[in-house]
Amino acid sequence: MSNLKNDLFLRACRQEQVERTPVWMMRQAGRYLPEYRAVRAKSDFITMCKTPELAAEVTIQPVDLIGVDAAILFSDILVIPMAMGMHLEMIESKGPVFHKPIRTSGDAKALKKIEVEKDLKYVLDAVRLTKQELNNRVPLIGFSGSPWTLLTYMVEGKGSKNFSEVKKMIYNNPELAHSLLDKIADAVTDYLNAKIEAGCDAIQIFDTWGGILTQDEFFEFSHEYITKIVSGLKRKNEPVIVFAKGVYYKFKRQIKCGCDVLGLDWTMDIGRVRTRVNDKVALQGNLDPTILYAHKNVIAEKALEIMQSYGQGNGHIFNLGHGILPDVPPENAKFLVDFIKEASYEFHK
Amino acid sequence: MSNLKNDLFLRACRQEQVERTPVWMMRQAGRYLPEYRAVRAKSDFITMCKTPELAAEVTIQPVDLIGVDAAILFSDILVIPMAMGMHLEMIESKGPVFHKPIRTSGDAKALKKIEVEKDLKYVLDAVRLTKQELNNRVPLIGFSGSPWTLLTYMVEGKGSKNFSEVKKMIYNNPELAHSLLDKIADAVTDYLNAKIEAGCDAIQIFDTWGGILTQDEFFEFSHEYITKIVSGLKRKNEPVIVFAKGVYYKFKRQIKCGCDVLGLDWTMDIGRVRTRVNDKVALQGNLDPTILYAHKNVIAEKALEIMQSYGQGNGHIFNLGHGILPDVPPENAKFLVDFIKEASYEFHK
Repeated sequence: MSNLKNDLFLRACRQEQVERTPVWMMRQAGRYLPEYRAVRAKSDFITMCKTPELAAEVTIQPVDLIGVDAAILFSDILVIPMAMGMHLEMIESKGPVFHKPIRTSGDAKALKKIEVEKDLKYVLDAVRLTKQELNNRVPLIGFSGSPWTLLTYMVEGKGSKNFSEVKKMIYNNPELAHSLLDKIADAVTDYLNAKIEAGCDAIQIFDTWGGILTQDEFFEFSHEYITKIVSGLKRKNEPVIVFAKGVYYKFKRQIKCGCDVLGLDWTMDIGRVRTRVNDKVALQGNLDPTILYAHKNVIAEKALEIMQSYGQGNGHIFNLGHGILPDVPPENAKFLVDFIKEASYEFHK
Repeated sequence: MSNLKNDLFLRACRQEQVERTPVWMMRQAGRYLPEYRAVRAKSDFITMCKTPELAAEVTIQPVDLIGVDAAILFSDILVIPMAMGMHLEMIESKGPVFHKPIRTSGDAKALKKIEVEKDLKYVLDAVRLTKQELNNRVPLIGFSGSPWTLLTYMVEGKGSKNFSEVKKMIYNNPELAHSLLDKIADAVTDYLNAKIEAGCDAIQIFDTWGGILTQDEFFEFSHEYITKIVSGLKRKNEPVIVFAKGVYYKFKRQIKCGCDVLGLDWTMDIGRVRTRVNDKVALQGNLDPTILYAHKNVIAEKALEIMQSYGQGNGHIFNLGHGILPDVPPENAKFLVDFIKEASYEFHK
């Protein structure tokens, strides 16, 4: 049913038979590539997100240059709060800043319901153009932040170390937090459905900040809304990956969100997690991104350890345990991808 | 054998019978107290560490003001690298900076063997003075960073997000990393032995950055050297607490370092960890520090949940799951301490 020339990634997500382990890297369309920096030198980050030609160009770069088995649409998780009416500014030294963060129910009421085809048309155009230019070489992943992760940015207004403001909200006004999370979950659901409709072959939900919560709070304030999104997706057979960084516990409960694939960070023991989830979902990960600073023999050794830990059989998508770092040598990224392509055959005999 | 008027903390560390749960807070001698800020306004941070009168004054403040069951000597983990010959500068906006970080074996060779009574006399004087001024009201904890945590600062030279440099060292030159860790472990052992000799009633080792490693790396580069320190301590019966933030796995293997108490961060389920370690060590923790921003009824509810999770019996020292935050209202810290003192009796019947 797919015309993809390389559908290894999708088959692995569905735990179907593959001849080797597929590999891609979070943030693979990024600053470590000189070709990316050349595009970025001419446009600011938000303009790149909003210009389908530029987004498509950098999305496809790692497919051409590094040889990954999947593309992931270049975009930003903060397009959702922007579409809800928040004004985002990218400050070079500080990262993304919302000058008017959400703190009160009044602030929350001012957030508008998004109309994806209007407010986020630029993302959908980028999906359509990228699909066309990829010409079925590899699948295209569309992504979103989880409602909890989006809420942290919307409430803090900027990068945070202790997440004081969003924690205050969940402790002192949990009703407001829940109503915001619900509203964001609806927006994300509409957004991801439109991305699937526009041609995305798979979806990844990033819960970057799920790990700052206690275990009970994670299930109450994050997992519940991820579950709501997954159950609201209108999919043909597009797999859903959920990556909750730092959420190292209760994997059997985690997979009840309905995901097909669980993403793991590098502190997790992938073989042990496989045993816990009992092959009910595929697993994605989980090489420490800093390994790409190492000598090639060390990269190979550590990558092999992860494949050995996962063990024989299907359902493993090789990835880093977090985004690729901006100062990694591109040749090391290419070496890793080539190594996985070569060394993984023996785990699929 | 102790003349302490309140030795609840020490008894809990040893899992002896206590009538209520003792409570203290990491970083309790800190910026959230106006009385601390008044001292700090007149002296820079390093001067405070190096001046026994000032260190003793702020160490005792939370005993007087908040009513904690233990004092922890005001100091900094970076006194060790300083004593080894590294020049530390405190830059207001960036935190501590070593302008000449350790990167090569040449840099490592230049580090000198510390003579505690000479190089760190100011710490020992602060211990002696604090003990005298505490006048046996509560025990005094002395602390150190773990060798791994100290190495990260010594190699990075400043605060880090991805720990690129120290990771490069463990991947590309593990021999150098091990020889440095060994040297640091020896220094820490001498330092902690001198602190015990000077009067500290208990020791806490902070492994703030153990959690950035993979599981195997944690045991190789951090746990091994904590174990070396603990086995090198000359103790009468001073308990040792090990707090490895983010190290949420293999608790049974962790406690083989020989500690009496394991400190837990707030993402850990204290009741579950108790089951895992099977009461072989006491547990310290683990309220999310941001809870102290919440309304008092929420603080009480969450603190009670932790005591309920730990359950009946001895061996629990109540603490936060990380240091108290600088903008917490002191009255909330006091409320927490009072609440634990009152509500914990029912867990010790």
